[in-house]
Amino acid sequence: MKKNKMARRDFLASIGRAVGSSAMLRTMAAMGIATTLNACGSSSAATGNPANPPAPPAPPAPPGSLISPRPGDWPANVGVGKTVAILGGGISGMTAALEMTRLGYNCTILEATATTGGRNRTIRAGDVVNETDSSQTCLYDFDNELYFNPGPARIPHHHEFLLGYCREFGIALETFTNVNHAALMHSTTAFGGQPVIARRIHADSRGSVARLLALAVNQNALDAELTAADKTNIIAMLRNFGDLDGSLDYVGSSRAGFPGQENTGSRRRGELVNPLVLRDLINETFWQQRQGFAEGLEQQPTMLQPVGGMDRIARAFEAQVLNDIVTDAEVTEIRKSTGGVRIIYDRLGTPTQLDADFCVCTIPATVLRNIANDFSAAHQAEINNFSYASAGKIAFQSRRFWEQDHNIYGGISWTTQDITQIWYPNSGFGQNNGILVGAYIFGGSAGVNFANQSIQQRINSAIAQGSNLHPEVNAEATRGVSVAWSKVPFQLGAWGTSSPFTLLTPDENIVFAGEHLSILQGWQEGAILSAYHAIDIVVAIT
Amino acid sequence: MKKNKMARRDFLASIGRAVGSSAMLRTMAAMGIATTLNACGSSSAATGNPANPPAPPAPPAPPGSLISPRPGDWPANVGVGKTVAILGGGISGMTAALEMTRLGYNCTILEATATTGGRNRTIRAGDVVNETDSSQTCLYDFDNELYFNPGPARIPHHHEFLLGYCREFGIALETFTNVNHAALMHSTTAFGGQPVIARRIHADSRGSVARLLALAVNQNALDAELTAADKTNIIAMLRNFGDLDGSLDYVGSSRAGFPGQENTGSRRRGELVNPLVLRDLINETFWQQRQGFAEGLEQQPTMLQPVGGMDRIARAFEAQVLNDIVTDAEVTEIRKSTGGVRIIYDRLGTPTQLDADFCVCTIPATVLRNIANDFSAAHQAEINNFSYASAGKIAFQSRRFWEQDHNIYGGISWTTQDITQIWYPNSGFGQNNGILVGAYIFGGSAGVNFANQSIQQRINSAIAQGSNLHPEVNAEATRGVSVAWSKVPFQLGAWGTSSPFTLLTPDENIVFAGEHLSILQGWQEGAILSAYHAIDIVVAIT
Repeated sequence: MKKNKMARRDFLASIGRAVGSSAMLRTMAAMGIATTLNACGSSSAATGNPANPPAPPAPPAPPGSLISPRPGDWPANVGVGKTVAILGGGISGMTAALEMTRLGYNCTILEATATTGGRNRTIRAGDVVNETDSSQTCLYDFDNELYFNPGPARIPHHHEFLLGYCREFGIALETFTNVNHAALMHSTTAFGGQPVIARRIHADSRGSVARLLALAVNQNALDAELTAADKTNIIAMLRNFGDLDGSLDYVGSSRAGFPGQENTGSRRRGELVNPLVLRDLINETFWQQRQGFAEGLEQQPTMLQPVGGMDRIARAFEAQVLNDIVTDAEVTEIRKSTGGVRIIYDRLGTPTQLDADFCVCTIPATVLRNIANDFSAAHQAEINNFSYASAGKIAFQSRRFWEQDHNIYGGISWTTQDITQIWYPNSGFGQNNGILVGAYIFGGSAGVNFANQSIQQRINSAIAQGSNLHPEVNAEATRGVSVAWSKVPFQLGAWGTSSPFTLLTPDENIVFAGEHLSILQGWQEGAILSAYHAIDIVVAIT
Repeated sequence: MKKNKMARRDFLASIGRAVGSSAMLRTMAAMGIATTLNACGSSSAATGNPANPPAPPAPPAPPGSLISPRPGDWPANVGVGKTVAILGGGISGMTAALEMTRLGYNCTILEATATTGGRNRTIRAGDVVNETDSSQTCLYDFDNELYFNPGPARIPHHHEFLLGYCREFGIALETFTNVNHAALMHSTTAFGGQPVIARRIHADSRGSVARLLALAVNQNALDAELTAADKTNIIAMLRNFGDLDGSLDYVGSSRAGFPGQENTGSRRRGELVNPLVLRDLINETFWQQRQGFAEGLEQQPTMLQPVGGMDRIARAFEAQVLNDIVTDAEVTEIRKSTGGVRIIYDRLGTPTQLDADFCVCTIPATVLRNIANDFSAAHQAEINNFSYASAGKIAFQSRRFWEQDHNIYGGISWTTQDITQIWYPNSGFGQNNGILVGAYIFGGSAGVNFANQSIQQRINSAIAQGSNLHPEVNAEATRGVSVAWSKVPFQLGAWGTSSPFTLLTPDENIVFAGEHLSILQGWQEGAILSAYHAIDIVVAIT
C-alpha cells in the first residue's frame, strides 16, 4: 500500500539492456520514475536496441504519459505459437493468463490449491480454513449475506483495471464504507477507557483545529502569510470547517451529535454533547493518526465491494481462463531450459513436467524461496529477503446489534487493542444476523501474536477485546472463523512489504508478478498492474 | 433540516392547560427545550389536570430523558371505539394510521391523489409527472436501476424510526454516498471555470489549514493555549491531518491524486498533482461552504437508500394500512362538529362526508390554506404564513460515462450554477446505463426559476450547465424528467421552512402533522416524529 519512489540507474540500465528501452521506460513508470514514455500505447516495445545504453533522464513527463502498461499496448497475436507457464492461480496469474491468451500465447496456470483466487477468498457456511497447524470449518448459517472476506475486502474507485474487469464480467458492486460517524474509536488509556462515537472525534478535531487557527489569524500571527482579504476569507472558511460560533469559539456542534445518541437516534435534541478536550484528542499517537486514514488515496470514498463476496471476482476470472487451469498442482521445481523453462509440479502425488517458452511466476516470495529453482543469485537473494505483513482477521456471526441498537450501518471501529479494527457489514442492512469482523490486524507484533494463538485463543481474545467496544459481543458474537495469512499454506503472508528491485526484471525467460511487485502492494489492482508489467516484459523478449 | 431552538413559555402554558402537562413536556422535548420528562415511556399522558398551571422550569434533563414521544409511550387500546380522519397519505399520515390503529383507533386516510407516499416518490419508465401547468411521461428504459427519486433520496443512519420501519417491513437498504472524492467541484469564476476533482479540495484544504496552524504553533503564537507537550502533540496530529512533510510544509499529497487521475486511475504514479493555492480555496463563498456540508449530523456517513427506489418505503407503509386508505379523495372542507370533526371530500366528482372523533391533518400548509375550514384564527394565520422551499430536481438517462470514463461511483458534484448539484447513482454500478440527477436545486431564486421554466427549458439549462462539469452530458444525457415541487398538485412546495408554533397545538379535536412541523423539516424521519407528536396529543385528549 506504499508508493515506492525509486531511482535506481543501474537497475534501469540492466533492464534496458535486457529487454529493450521501451519496456525499461515502462518499468520506470511502474516504479514511479518520471520520464517521457512516448511508446506507451504503441507496439514498439520490442524495437529497442539492447546494445544502446539508456537515454539520460528526461524532463518531467507530459500529462497522460507517465502510466504503466495496459492491455492494448501490445501487438496483436504477438504470442501466437508461444507457450507460457503461469505459476499461481491468484488474481495476478489469472490476469496474465487472460491477457496473454488474448495476445495468442498458449497459457497454463498451475495452482497449488483446489481453488483459484489466492488471497481473494470468501468464507461461507461449510467452508474449511486450513492453516499450517490447524483446520476450521465455518459454521455460519447458510445465507447470501453471511460471508467473510479474509483477504481483500474493498476496492478503491480508481482501481480501474479491476473495476473494468468487474464491468466486463458483469460482477455486481456495491458501496463499501470506511468512515462511519456512528462507529467507535477506542483507546484503553484515553477517555476512561470508554469508546467514543466517531462523530465526536471528527467534529471536535475540526472544531479545535479551526478555533486555534482562527485565533492565530486574528492575533495577526500569520500576517506574513495572509493578506487582510485572506484573513477575512479564511475565517469564513474556518467557521464552516469547524462549525465555530460567532465569536470564533468552538463550544461543541450538532455535528458531534446529542447526548444519548448511541441509541436514541434523532429523537433527542436541544442540548449538545460536550466537546472533547483538545488535549485528549492529541495526546496519544492513536488519536493523532485517526486524522489521516480515510484521506489516503487508496482509502478515500467511494470504496466498493462485490455483492455477495470478494470471490465473485475470482470466480469470474476463473470462468475466463478455466481451460488453462490445473488445480492441486504444487510446483516443486522451476528450471531454465534451452530457450525456455521447465516446471515440475506435483499433482495429487504425481510428479508432472511442464515445458514452456516463458514462465510468469506469481508465487509469493515466502513460498517461492522454498521451491527448487535455477534463478540467478540476485533474484534468489531478493526472494529470500522479501518481507510480508503478518495480517489476519476473525469474523463472527451475530445479531446485528450494531444496526438495531446503535444505528451503525457498515464502516469500521478502531481500538488500540490488538484487534485494531471491527468491521460492520456493508450490505444486508436490516436483516437480523450479519457477519462482524471482530479483528483486522494489519501486521506487526499483534499480527504475529494473532498467528501464533490457537484458534480458540483468537476467538477468546477477539471477544474479550471487542466487548470493550460493544458489550454485546460477549454474548452475541458466535462461530468465529479466523485467518492468519502467515500460516495459510501456499500464501505464508498477507502482502509484500519490501521494495521490489531485481524481481521486476526477468531472469532469462522467467518473469515475476504478484501484488508484492507492484506500486499497490496488498491490493488486487497491484496484482493486475504487476501482471501487465510481466506481460510487457514477455512481449518485449518474445 | 434546521434545528429549532424555541423557548416559548406562553405557548407551553397554553398547551399545558389544553392537553395535560405530560403532553406539554413532550412538546417541549420535541421543540428541543431541556426539561425533565419523567412521564416518558409511561402511560400518564392522560392524567394531567388541565386546571393546573404547568410546573416551573425543571433543571437540565438527565441523559436519556429528553426525547420525543415514540410508540410504546401510549396506553394499550386507548383508542378503542374512537375514529380518526387522517388527511393526507404521505409518510406522516400513514405513520399516524399505522400506530393509531395499533392503539385501537379506527382510522381513515383521505389521500387526494391516486397514490400514497406524498413526496416520497420514485419515477420509472412510463410514469406520468404532473405539475400545475405541465405533464411529462418518463421515457427511461424499463430496468430496476433506472429510477429517479425526485423527493427524499437518502436516509441518515440515525433516523431510527424510519429505519426501524424499514427493518420491520423488510425493505432492503444500501449505502448512499454524499462525499465521493472522485466527484467534481465547480465554480464558474474560480480555477478558470474548470471543475476540480473533489480529492484536491479535500486534501489541499486540510493541508493548508494544517500548515498554517503548525506555523502558528511553532511561532509560539498559541502559547497561551498550548503547553509544550500540547505543541508537540498537535504538530504530530497536524502532520497526519494535513499530510505535511518533515518541514511541516504542505507541498501537495498523494491524497489529492496524480496528474491525469480523472481517467488513468491508479496506473499513474511518481509525481504529485500541484496543490491548489489556499487563496483560491477561500476567496469564494462556494469554496468556503464546501468544508461543512457532509460534516452535518443529517449528512454524515453512513447514509442509506432503499434498494430499487425510495417508494419501496411508501409501498410498504401502504400495505400496512391498505384497508384504511381512500385515494383520489380531495378534501374540500375541514369542520369542527360537536365532540369531533366533519370532513368533506370530493372523490372522483362525488362530494362525500366523513365524521370522526379526531382529525390528524398532514396536508402541507401551502395546500391547506386553500381548503375551507373551521380552524382558529391563530392556526389559520400560521398556515397562511408558513414558508416552503421551492426545490426541484431533474434526472436523465445516460451511459454511465462517470463510471466508465471517470471512476465516479455514486456521490455528488457541486457547482455555482443554478443546477447546484449533480448526483451519480449509488447502485447498479457497472451497468451500461444509469440515471444521472442533473440538477438538485434546494430553493431560493434558482428554485423559483427552475419551477418557472418550461419542461424543455429545464432540460436545456441542465444540459448546458452540466456540460460545464461533464462534456459528455451534452451528447449522452437524454430523456430528462423534472419535478419542481412548488408546482406539484397537493404538495405545492418541497419542505416547510418556517418554525412551527401554533400548529404544534391541537385546534379542538384537530391536530396537525407533517415534516414541516418537526425538528427534521424536509426529512421523512421528521414526518414520522411529527406523527408521533400528533398521536401523543390525541391520546392525551382521548
